[in-house]
Amino acid sequence: MKEYIAENKERFFDELFSLLRIPSVSADPRHKDDMRACADRWVELLLAAGADSAAVYETAGHPVVFGSKSLGAGFPTILVYGHYDVQPEGDLKLWKSHPYEPEIRDGAIYARGANDDKGQTFMHVKVFEYLVRTGKLRHNVKFIFEGEEETGSDSLGEWVKAHSKMLSSDIILVSDTTMISDKVPSINCGMRGLTYMEVKVTGPDKDLHSGHYGGGIFNPVNTLCKMIGSLIDDEGRITVKGFYDDVVELSRKDRRMLARAPFDKKEYMDSIGVGALSGEKGYTTLEREGIRPCLDVNGIWGGYIEDGSKTIIPSEAHAKISMRLVPNQDCDRIARLFTRHFKAIAPKGVKVDVRYVHGGNGFLIPISSKAYKAASKAMEEVYGIEPVPSRGGGSITILADMQRILHADPLLMGFGLERDVIHSPNESFLIEQLFKGMESIALFYKYF
Amino acid sequence: MKEYIAENKERFFDELFSLLRIPSVSADPRHKDDMRACADRWVELLLAAGADSAAVYETAGHPVVFGSKSLGAGFPTILVYGHYDVQPEGDLKLWKSHPYEPEIRDGAIYARGANDDKGQTFMHVKVFEYLVRTGKLRHNVKFIFEGEEETGSDSLGEWVKAHSKMLSSDIILVSDTTMISDKVPSINCGMRGLTYMEVKVTGPDKDLHSGHYGGGIFNPVNTLCKMIGSLIDDEGRITVKGFYDDVVELSRKDRRMLARAPFDKKEYMDSIGVGALSGEKGYTTLEREGIRPCLDVNGIWGGYIEDGSKTIIPSEAHAKISMRLVPNQDCDRIARLFTRHFKAIAPKGVKVDVRYVHGGNGFLIPISSKAYKAASKAMEEVYGIEPVPSRGGGSITILADMQRILHADPLLMGFGLERDVIHSPNESFLIEQLFKGMESIALFYKYF
Repeated sequence: MKEYIAENKERFFDELFSLLRIPSVSADPRHKDDMRACADRWVELLLAAGADSAAVYETAGHPVVFGSKSLGAGFPTILVYGHYDVQPEGDLKLWKSHPYEPEIRDGAIYARGANDDKGQTFMHVKVFEYLVRTGKLRHNVKFIFEGEEETGSDSLGEWVKAHSKMLSSDIILVSDTTMISDKVPSINCGMRGLTYMEVKVTGPDKDLHSGHYGGGIFNPVNTLCKMIGSLIDDEGRITVKGFYDDVVELSRKDRRMLARAPFDKKEYMDSIGVGALSGEKGYTTLEREGIRPCLDVNGIWGGYIEDGSKTIIPSEAHAKISMRLVPNQDCDRIARLFTRHFKAIAPKGVKVDVRYVHGGNGFLIPISSKAYKAASKAMEEVYGIEPVPSRGGGSITILADMQRILHADPLLMGFGLERDVIHSPNESFLIEQLFKGMESIALFYKYF
Repeated sequence: MKEYIAENKERFFDELFSLLRIPSVSADPRHKDDMRACADRWVELLLAAGADSAAVYETAGHPVVFGSKSLGAGFPTILVYGHYDVQPEGDLKLWKSHPYEPEIRDGAIYARGANDDKGQTFMHVKVFEYLVRTGKLRHNVKFIFEGEEETGSDSLGEWVKAHSKMLSSDIILVSDTTMISDKVPSINCGMRGLTYMEVKVTGPDKDLHSGHYGGGIFNPVNTLCKMIGSLIDDEGRITVKGFYDDVVELSRKDRRMLARAPFDKKEYMDSIGVGALSGEKGYTTLEREGIRPCLDVNGIWGGYIEDGSKTIIPSEAHAKISMRLVPNQDCDRIARLFTRHFKAIAPKGVKVDVRYVHGGNGFLIPISSKAYKAASKAMEEVYGIEPVPSRGGGSITILADMQRILHADPLLMGFGLERDVIHSPNESFLIEQLFKGMESIALFYKYF
């Protein structure tokens, strides 16, 4: 694979950059056409790489890309999952180069989606191309690239159910996660689930003059703040009634295994510019972010938020609140518990609306499986160190559904690094990781 | 005056509408030219009404309009204060007619500023015109109309100091407040002060993926919510250390006097669409909104606030927080106390910035004064009932400064009603109140 990379490097960049130039932001309806353009471009790349067929499939939301190459029933089948949508770019002023004009600086590609997940998905298509062109392919390969991962994969579950035969496979191979560091490879063997809610607190039926009414009525922003403030107690535990009912405590052995991952607190804090860490009492930072649930406000708004001052009691206050769940917690049940709790803690003088935006369950992958062992061997050969089995804090919510529908375990070979700051301005992907990722995946095909 | 109104009614509407058509929003820099246009229009109207002179005066912010007519040193001098700036119009969709295209419906004028304060200021100019044209003027009259009342009168204090001789007067006459109801006239004999702050809580130095980091670091929105939630305790008291130090408890007698004002709880709640009231324990709603201080969030924002979902831990969270103060509390001292307190309650993992946007002190007006008595007699003659001396919850922060600099007491003859919903969509002013206001003011000139 190394040689093939060296020979085709420039073309690889051209092809990846053609994907990165398309602002395929799934959350923003104005980018609907860009979503389609990006799906079309993946189809071209799959066909060029050697797929027997590839096409764009409509769904209730953004389309799905599916392509495949079959060698026959005697060969094991790998289903590669990826997503072509990206997070909104956010404030352009915070980007050093334009998010949709990819640029190479200091050995990394800078662009929205450079890592998440265009760059990481691209590795798989190029390894497939290499195996086809050199006659080394020994697996049936299928590709499914969705367009709604960043908004909760609303349409994919139905689509997978309807096309389960077409998608049937032995494993689901995914690169959409990070490694512990470029010196410490890791394989993600569990991910958290997600319940994403939106809440609205309404006070008076219109904005009121804060001088005339201030002190006498419930201000919905003050009220929302107090309600949100009460959702996590002083020990860092979520106060939603019944929230921890299904959380399984990890064994000491499992926690020890997890603790093998190197973690430098100071380096970690410096990398995100904070002076102190927080979280649930009794757990380490890695545990808090990997094996414990949490609750975060992702956005809040209400009242006058322009320049200058306006003396109003706002009529409404809003927040987007999401909870990361650990395996065994059910996202729909958590949504119900949250809704009930949030309404229960509201004072009588306000009206509370709670909307369940989307959700997905977490999952675990057995490290004793053939696929895990093949991935571990492959990565050890490339990085010179046996990968650490890690637990990821993020969620690819659709994977738990696919695991259930397709009866195939996901395998998460992620090559991102924390420094890539996915979802933030100046997202990037190290070229060295892009190429080492390709080498690792090529070896995985060899050992699986 | 009644006859004069009947004869000139249509011209009055034309002139007032010409003011209402100008979107003189002081908070929005894009309306700078409109501010100047509105000031110019007032100068035209003052000169046309009979002022010896009138002009626009530059300040560090929006300009001030000053005009006057002098009869000589033997006559008492009335200084009329008003403001030509308006609150931002807010969401246009919530307006039944365009905020800057005045419309008469059901006996009321609908437009931004119809009441606050173009409509109420207009009454004074027309009474002045009447007195001049009918040869009945027996006072020196001065007019000062500022353009920054809605944003805290930042420049006016300095300007008043620099022009104190030109402004010298026996009383400061103001119509910028409401009456209890159109059946129960009232004269506002005290107003609350204001301290307006803006706060920023910074967590990580960029937005982070909430899956990777959630549970391990301080989310600045959750943190801001918790901090704001703690600013008012369960008894409705503000927890800022030292906040109540200078608050003078009203005597039982004063509270009984205030309680004379009619108040129908159900009607009040219905008028603003709420199902329950709140506030400081031990006080009535009128007291909470008139003689007690309070704290309100006027705006809050942070993280992802567009449609759809984004799973981030935001880097920053912001809020505009204002406190209404009662006489004896000093706005600058409260700003210092708030700043110290808000920084003190922040956890170590976030950075807190607190900015003092603007402030002004409250004031009290002696009801035994000649001016108060003249106003009371005038309004009793027009409304048939002796006005209730009330305490206003709002703030015209500059009046306390003018009182101090000019050694003249303000007198607040307001003709607005709660139904006018100033600062909200569909602001209006009843034509009957407009005309009764003119009659009352004309009689005030007679008795003062």
